[in-house]
Amino acid sequence: MADADSGLQLRSTVKSDGTLELSLAVVPTPDPKPEEVIVRMGASPINPSDQGLLFAGADLSTARASGTPDRPVVTARIPPPALPGLAGRLDKPMPVGNEGAGVVVRAGASPAAQALLGKTVAILGGSMYAQYRCIKAVQCLVLPPGTTAAEGASCFVNPLTALGMVATMRAEGHRALAHTAAASNLGQMLVRICLADGIPLVNVVRKAEHVAVLQGIGATHVCSSSEPTFMEDLTDALAATGATVAFDAVGGGRLAGQILVAMEAAINRTAKDYSRYGSTTHKQVYIYGSLDRGPTEFTRTFGTAWGFGGWLLTPFLQKIGFEAAQKLRERVAAEIKTTFASTYTKEISLAQALALDEIAVYGKLATGAKYLIDPNRDLG
Amino acid sequence: MADADSGLQLRSTVKSDGTLELSLAVVPTPDPKPEEVIVRMGASPINPSDQGLLFAGADLSTARASGTPDRPVVTARIPPPALPGLAGRLDKPMPVGNEGAGVVVRAGASPAAQALLGKTVAILGGSMYAQYRCIKAVQCLVLPPGTTAAEGASCFVNPLTALGMVATMRAEGHRALAHTAAASNLGQMLVRICLADGIPLVNVVRKAEHVAVLQGIGATHVCSSSEPTFMEDLTDALAATGATVAFDAVGGGRLAGQILVAMEAAINRTAKDYSRYGSTTHKQVYIYGSLDRGPTEFTRTFGTAWGFGGWLLTPFLQKIGFEAAQKLRERVAAEIKTTFASTYTKEISLAQALALDEIAVYGKLATGAKYLIDPNRDLG
Repeated sequence: MADADSGLQLRSTVKSDGTLELSLAVVPTPDPKPEEVIVRMGASPINPSDQGLLFAGADLSTARASGTPDRPVVTARIPPPALPGLAGRLDKPMPVGNEGAGVVVRAGASPAAQALLGKTVAILGGSMYAQYRCIKAVQCLVLPPGTTAAEGASCFVNPLTALGMVATMRAEGHRALAHTAAASNLGQMLVRICLADGIPLVNVVRKAEHVAVLQGIGATHVCSSSEPTFMEDLTDALAATGATVAFDAVGGGRLAGQILVAMEAAINRTAKDYSRYGSTTHKQVYIYGSLDRGPTEFTRTFGTAWGFGGWLLTPFLQKIGFEAAQKLRERVAAEIKTTFASTYTKEISLAQALALDEIAVYGKLATGAKYLIDPNRDLG
Repeated sequence: MADADSGLQLRSTVKSDGTLELSLAVVPTPDPKPEEVIVRMGASPINPSDQGLLFAGADLSTARASGTPDRPVVTARIPPPALPGLAGRLDKPMPVGNEGAGVVVRAGASPAAQALLGKTVAILGGSMYAQYRCIKAVQCLVLPPGTTAAEGASCFVNPLTALGMVATMRAEGHRALAHTAAASNLGQMLVRICLADGIPLVNVVRKAEHVAVLQGIGATHVCSSSEPTFMEDLTDALAATGATVAFDAVGGGRLAGQILVAMEAAINRTAKDYSRYGSTTHKQVYIYGSLDRGPTEFTRTFGTAWGFGGWLLTPFLQKIGFEAAQKLRERVAAEIKTTFASTYTKEISLAQALALDEIAVYGKLATGAKYLIDPNRDLG
């Protein structure tokens, strides 16, 4: 193992001329304060939620490589309409990577920090695409013995989002839910949570081949939006489950609105009287992702009792409070090899994360093509 | 005055072949039960919310006239995509007209009903485009002496909706609000309510000539979406007022989404740090009308703390309960000639409501072109 006094960190910079620049910088590793530890990162996933910060909406078809094999640099053009929303980060190099796992290699003086030395921990908080990450001991989720960093790399974003969806469904009085891009790692976790907890779930996928993936892990209702019978299939599934809330990872296009249309149709199958204002049952779609970054379009043929909204993990966790969130985290750690297991297409180094051929693959946000970065691979 | 034993009633029928038929039917006037009264209707407005039931989404460019001058019949073609949503009303003649006012000409035996004989009352409940309407005495809002039926015809839909917007704004923790199609009768009421109650209001209009209308009644912030500087003007007004909730009467197109974009920009003017998830302030747009029946489109550049939703008067009134609603109704009656005064372009008879040249005008839902029906005009 190399000297931990400094290490590489992936940086994303939006320059004031409208260029995105990705690079690797050598940053000094801080001395941990008494309550802090230094984690040597072993694995960090490239989630869709990371790519917003990483690529800043740049047009990846304009990406160009420069630099050296060890210190690659990627530049790409950001479409002018996206620039006003990026004013706050102009010319500031931003570290990237929401979550990851690794081994505690240094610890501050406090007993809580010292107790973590040598342990494999999962952590959340940004700047994870780096060889070393300084973090408070209290933020470390200790993984069960025998868990690798790769196995524990995705303990937070997807697992807590999936658990948050179920908790939100319950809190808002729905008895079943629907989910799009459902063959994703997150979607598969949701299938397993709903099976374990007895919650009816409607899975919406965009490709026919994803139907079998979900059926293979026990999903009952799987509808493919690529089928000509999609709206009927979806309405049938919503009627069978009674789902009146959906979580949508796609965002753009017509899918979110189609779900509201199908929910209304499902409810009206048992309606006694015509109401020109539609059913009185509230139908809700939460958009939590932007796999399609284009505009969202909907035709308002679903009455007046409906809502679209943004959904984000952090405010949800703040709302339920630290203790309730901690229980969720502990469930994740205990079930990290089963309910919350993730699969990855490929493991890459920090330098490979800046290779144009790899960006061309993981930048597509295709379901079933998730990359894992090992920030210490091919180094030290 | 003619015999009140029967009277004309306007009917809207969606036939199973996809044709809309509007006609006048002679219906018997029921004997009022002890708690009921018979109101001889003097005035009933054609609100946008009436036109959904009246026209059932028919293509008015296909409207054809038949029948006789006294008993006109209008037919029009309903676009096939609208038909599934109308299944519940196929071949059922629907009476139309949400609200109106008139004189109590017969009363049931109860003291409450008897006390209303000869009084001019405002009523809500459908079937108002008719010479006579039987209704419970408790549903009658007695108008102050000297108030005509025309003055009291719009006591419910617009006034209670405007008051409901302010109440919703307060209940959800916002301190200012925005409103679209703001030069409408409803919009002018909202301006007067907000002036009286000290609430900052952002008015959005679609035509430059409507700006002066609102400024003339004291509105401070008026933005026209037809100006090239609209987004800047809107952002300035939202920043000045702090409005984070909007009520949108337009529905279709890009306006609702533009409001969220401008709200986010207004909030970020005072933001200290860049957050890739946008501001944490919840921004809400309620769509309560469909002046544009086309699809709604929005580009998600307003962070993750946002919501779109339907808003409807009836569930709002149910939520606040009878007593709170009654207080709102009493305020309306007391201020019907001031805060809640309505203006109409034209007063027409039931037969004129089915004249193609009139439909061509009021069917446009143009702000500032509101019609009032006098169901007993040119009759008896």
